[in-house]
Amino acid sequence: MAKLTSRTQDFSEWYLDVIREADLADYAPVRGCIVVKPYGWSLYENMRDFLDRRFKDTGHSNAAFPMFIPMSFLNREAQHVKGFSPELAVVTVGGGEQLEEPLAVRPTSETIIGYMYAQWVKSYRDLPVLINAWNSVVRWEKRTRPFLRTTEFFWQEGHTAHATHEESSEEVMRMLDVYAAHARDECAVPVIKGRKSISERFAGADSTYSIEAMMGDKKALQSATSHDLGQNFARAFDIKYLDRDNTEKLCWTTSWGMSWRMLGAVIMVHGDDQGLRLPPRIAPIQAVIVPIYKNESERTAVMQAADSIFTTLKSNGIRVKLDDRDETPGFKFNDWELRGVPVRVEIGPRDVANGTVALGRRDVPGKAGKSFVPQAGLAERITTLFEEIQSGLLQQATNFRDANIREVSTYAELKEAVEDGFALAPVADDPAVDAQIKEETKATNRCFPLEQVPGEWKCIVTGKPVRERALFGKAY
Amino acid sequence: MAKLTSRTQDFSEWYLDVIREADLADYAPVRGCIVVKPYGWSLYENMRDFLDRRFKDTGHSNAAFPMFIPMSFLNREAQHVKGFSPELAVVTVGGGEQLEEPLAVRPTSETIIGYMYAQWVKSYRDLPVLINAWNSVVRWEKRTRPFLRTTEFFWQEGHTAHATHEESSEEVMRMLDVYAAHARDECAVPVIKGRKSISERFAGADSTYSIEAMMGDKKALQSATSHDLGQNFARAFDIKYLDRDNTEKLCWTTSWGMSWRMLGAVIMVHGDDQGLRLPPRIAPIQAVIVPIYKNESERTAVMQAADSIFTTLKSNGIRVKLDDRDETPGFKFNDWELRGVPVRVEIGPRDVANGTVALGRRDVPGKAGKSFVPQAGLAERITTLFEEIQSGLLQQATNFRDANIREVSTYAELKEAVEDGFALAPVADDPAVDAQIKEETKATNRCFPLEQVPGEWKCIVTGKPVRERALFGKAY
Repeated sequence: MAKLTSRTQDFSEWYLDVIREADLADYAPVRGCIVVKPYGWSLYENMRDFLDRRFKDTGHSNAAFPMFIPMSFLNREAQHVKGFSPELAVVTVGGGEQLEEPLAVRPTSETIIGYMYAQWVKSYRDLPVLINAWNSVVRWEKRTRPFLRTTEFFWQEGHTAHATHEESSEEVMRMLDVYAAHARDECAVPVIKGRKSISERFAGADSTYSIEAMMGDKKALQSATSHDLGQNFARAFDIKYLDRDNTEKLCWTTSWGMSWRMLGAVIMVHGDDQGLRLPPRIAPIQAVIVPIYKNESERTAVMQAADSIFTTLKSNGIRVKLDDRDETPGFKFNDWELRGVPVRVEIGPRDVANGTVALGRRDVPGKAGKSFVPQAGLAERITTLFEEIQSGLLQQATNFRDANIREVSTYAELKEAVEDGFALAPVADDPAVDAQIKEETKATNRCFPLEQVPGEWKCIVTGKPVRERALFGKAY
Repeated sequence: MAKLTSRTQDFSEWYLDVIREADLADYAPVRGCIVVKPYGWSLYENMRDFLDRRFKDTGHSNAAFPMFIPMSFLNREAQHVKGFSPELAVVTVGGGEQLEEPLAVRPTSETIIGYMYAQWVKSYRDLPVLINAWNSVVRWEKRTRPFLRTTEFFWQEGHTAHATHEESSEEVMRMLDVYAAHARDECAVPVIKGRKSISERFAGADSTYSIEAMMGDKKALQSATSHDLGQNFARAFDIKYLDRDNTEKLCWTTSWGMSWRMLGAVIMVHGDDQGLRLPPRIAPIQAVIVPIYKNESERTAVMQAADSIFTTLKSNGIRVKLDDRDETPGFKFNDWELRGVPVRVEIGPRDVANGTVALGRRDVPGKAGKSFVPQAGLAERITTLFEEIQSGLLQQATNFRDANIREVSTYAELKEAVEDGFALAPVADDPAVDAQIKEETKATNRCFPLEQVPGEWKCIVTGKPVRERALFGKAY
């Protein structure tokens, strides 16, 4: 497709080209904001529904909180306001009048939710509170990029309150696992779970955990975070409960979020020079039927067969589209490749005569991905193919990532490694170390992976003995 | 329940009591805003999912647009800005700096969506554009009331663009029908479809249609609107297409919306002095199992049977809850009545011995609603019961409404009728007439119903001959 820049030539341009040409999103006439078009939003809805199911299966309920937060609320937690106040959008006028207290458009909702939890939680019987909200938040970003960093972005934010730190810690890890499972099993994106270094923690958290993925240009994308907020917000908002022993205690809270960045990850992990390659579980259209004919009499027979295949696939729960546009097959092939539809069903006059179709796989280009199969049993065959494509995409992404992580033991090795992938390097969890490496290599400390080979190393910067290694990479 | 004011004593207090006690929503610490709690949000999600299905079945797709609208956009359509500018919340500061152009938080999105459609629509091949968005909007209201009128409220807004007025008019009516069907078939709320009078039109529309419902206090609630925007927004935003005849033409656009007001309607149409009564199709919990026992040995046997019933009902797709709290059965009965759960399943030691349960219907109070049935075939029996309750609630509401609409032919009759219901009165579609009646009776022109008995009357105010009658009532 001439429309797309090639990935090797300019990955960043390729990304923008794919978003535009595959009709995922468009720029809005508001600084740093995008409009998500129907095809992109349908993909987001599919991802959202899977994640929402996982939240509900782990005992969470959805609720809705206001988009406005009184400025005084943000000021109650010192680290929090420090982190977020430079990025706020502020409403100063309402109903034609200057507001006495300006309202921030939420950059995240710990404060207003903390305030509500303080009203709702009275006794140990009220705990845990396990609530999630799907919404959009606003952070005034200097440099924006569709899905990855926008002024307004859609996400979900979970907020929970617990009686003990043991329970809240379990929750933090449970939700990190939920995110990792969603990324792996539904988005076919392998991720590394880890603890954020001190310098990369959420503003107001005692510790932050994240999942980190490698994009097609070997850069890192933080794809979700889960925060242990300790008692910081409980203290700031007075979230207390009367325990069984009749004494009043502060709650322990958590928060966790995944945004439409994950959609950006799906684009950048799987896409190729022909466009998107979507995992079948989340693809808005899982299979497209392209009828092939030369004249009107061929057309009639082919369309009849195509209609019948469409009905069969649809009734088997496949999200299928019959492309009956007045365009050439070549145009249609390119168009659906661009949009990443996992399976293409081609049917021509010979297929009609033979009771066959040609199947094309988006994940395996050209002839290697093509097979000729009977129309009988097609739905089952395609459903099986979806599973193969789903796991094939995950395998490709995992191989690519693993081939591009280097274990290093010196600063020189790290410098070289992060030019073309991730480095796993022993370092102290020290903001000064993170800062120096970032300054000198442009790579950041992505996380200390939870899975560590036990051992003792020397910090590549300070030379001090350390027991953990961190993942470094250039990041979005 | 002592917790609730009785409906006859003070309907308005009763409404607030139910919302609080049934855990639907709470007041937010932001002027005129509410927090929707998990039980309330689950109800809203169920309603939303049904409506969303109906939108998709009529060919619409969802998309997402920014919450911010440049002030200059609102100014482009003269009537629109006149209607909305007094109610705007305005962001004047972003990222610590005064914005050059302030941003309105969307009160509705015709303008920014119009701007986008102008980019997307080039040719007749691009039409129609059929898009919906689920979001929240902000209007700075003076007097607020949970779900009925809040500063921020959740809704959906559909926006479509068409080649001809014939097609856009069809769309306006199609969506009005979708709303009426959703209200009737899922919310069990009978509605009257009608055309809004000139004075009640949406700001910027050529004509507005609405569905109107009667609440339990005989007041009206406008439950959804569908607008024929003519070419007003197409002209303001330059939404043009190249037609088959190679000439450039302006599009015809529509917009239509239903908000969480409909949830308020469900509360006010069906609720009684014991609390909510929820239609089974949208109830977050459709059936609750209450185990009854006196001692530990009874408890063991009863809980075992209750667990097994729970599993059976759940596997039959019923949204069921087993209430195993350490509370008395009486407490639990009241609690689930308050929350409007349609069916109660009671099981005690004698039921365990006999293989029976007692079923209670929320829509039929006391003994009349109670039946003793075998455990065998319970899921099917309850599923049938849901259908009976669903249609029973609709029937009750329809009877109540129809008994409280009076056909009038003089102003004096109207004055009397609107003190205790709706009046159907012949009037001219004249803002002066609407204004006088509102001023003198507090009743407003709800709509000119689409279903009219053909005839000729005299306007009850001006005496001029008219061919339509309008529905008047005091309204929320």
